Amino acid sequence: MTDRRAAFRALHHTGRPLLLPNAWDHASAAALAAGGHPAIGTTSLGVAAAAGRPDGVAATAEQTLALTRRLGRLPLLLTVDVEAGFSDDPGAVAGYVAELAGLGAVGINLEDGRADGTLADLARTAETIAAVKAAVPDLFVNARTDTWWLGVADPLPQTLTRARAYVAAGADGIFVPGIVDLATLRVLAERVDAPLNALYQPGGPTLDELGRAGVARVSTGSLLFRAALAAAVATADAVRAGRFVAPSGLPSYAEVQGLVPTAGA
Amino acid sequence: MTDRRAAFRALHHTGRPLLLPNAWDHASAAALAAGGHPAIGTTSLGVAAAAGRPDGVAATAEQTLALTRRLGRLPLLLTVDVEAGFSDDPGAVAGYVAELAGLGAVGINLEDGRADGTLADLARTAETIAAVKAAVPDLFVNARTDTWWLGVADPLPQTLTRARAYVAAGADGIFVPGIVDLATLRVLAERVDAPLNALYQPGGPTLDELGRAGVARVSTGSLLFRAALAAAVATADAVRAGRFVAPSGLPSYAEVQGLVPTAGA
Repeated sequence: MTDRRAAFRALHHTGRPLLLPNAWDHASAAALAAGGHPAIGTTSLGVAAAAGRPDGVAATAEQTLALTRRLGRLPLLLTVDVEAGFSDDPGAVAGYVAELAGLGAVGINLEDGRADGTLADLARTAETIAAVKAAVPDLFVNARTDTWWLGVADPLPQTLTRARAYVAAGADGIFVPGIVDLATLRVLAERVDAPLNALYQPGGPTLDELGRAGVARVSTGSLLFRAALAAAVATADAVRAGRFVAPSGLPSYAEVQGLVPTAGA
Repeated sequence: MTDRRAAFRALHHTGRPLLLPNAWDHASAAALAAGGHPAIGTTSLGVAAAAGRPDGVAATAEQTLALTRRLGRLPLLLTVDVEAGFSDDPGAVAGYVAELAGLGAVGINLEDGRADGTLADLARTAETIAAVKAAVPDLFVNARTDTWWLGVADPLPQTLTRARAYVAAGADGIFVPGIVDLATLRVLAERVDAPLNALYQPGGPTLDELGRAGVARVSTGSLLFRAALAAAVATADAVRAGRFVAPSGLPSYAEVQGLVPTAGA
């Protein structure tokens, strides 16, 4: 277990950003791993929507646990989006995360944005991070601050304050979604003493551009889930409209079955 | 409930084939319904792969039930793929299907293909159909015969024999996947006294061509699931390779959240 956590940690220091595609079920995770991605994140939006639950309101603790149970033993390095920990109690969050780690997760994402559009108390968030690290010291805790996401005024100083406090509490990485400006990312990368995670934005900077700005890790967030949903609907629309649907480029029935562990396993 | 079953039945007789897109989770079903599809099927391959289980070996009775619980009360007409009924016992199949109907399903697909590549005993399959219809008389039972699917030699006579026996046992529709030849479909449509369901094949006949051949219902099977999976992997590949990913054409975060019943519901 510890070897896998070390392997995941090392992927943040290869000289090129770690691209972390985000899955929402067994098939998406297994297909991405089969496509050569050694590490897979989860998308809380995707996990929630797949289960018919809202995202970001601590409604999917059970689904996230079930997904980790499915994916944690697959030959991939799994880091799990736990929103804000599904609890306001640092000890409860630590206990939950320890359970995920026991199921094979090598890392988590923990966010300070709240459903009401405010940021959680800084000290309380730092306390939660410390509690998680005390429970599972070598788990990679990626602390997400939603300063940009939530449109905080003049976000850079508050982002730096929060990032440094989270690192001081034990966070292994800092995630600031919502920034596409490379100069801003460079400032953060230089001033925060932990690998910086950026959210990939379609039409925004490429992986290499982000890497040159000092970004160590790039997540796709809900992008792949939204692309999957769009493809399903577009394909149904094409069939309905009598438009040509290309018979190639899709995994076959057998290839999809091949993503599943051998029957009985 | 009965009104919804009647509405589903009526969709087989509108003069244009009922296009039945197949979903595998809440989000895919809700997105397809939002796209204007009044009736939604499930894909057993998708349901199985999403859960990390093999398809076609009765390994997903629990997942299928859970999915029906999620989708059965949504404003859509749901028909559920139950493979071969997840049991060899007609009474057990009927009990299971009655539970699905109680959760809101308006129809089921029941297949005679077996995992070992053989067809189930005809009389036993007919007995199962009759047991299901006795338990839930107005549920639309779409009986699938896998004569083409499994490559039976000279399949037409056996298909006709099975289709007629299934209709005599109470089946409301007959599904013969694997045929793209319009003349063959026309023969089946003319000689079977129940709506004929064809499986859409990319690159094959269009919906209107199938309709002119007498097909009353067209399913997409696992196509949408496979298209979704392909889109997720292709998007991740594009990000990794630094290729342009278009920022448009995808549902937004808010649109995906909008697919979910109001929090607390």
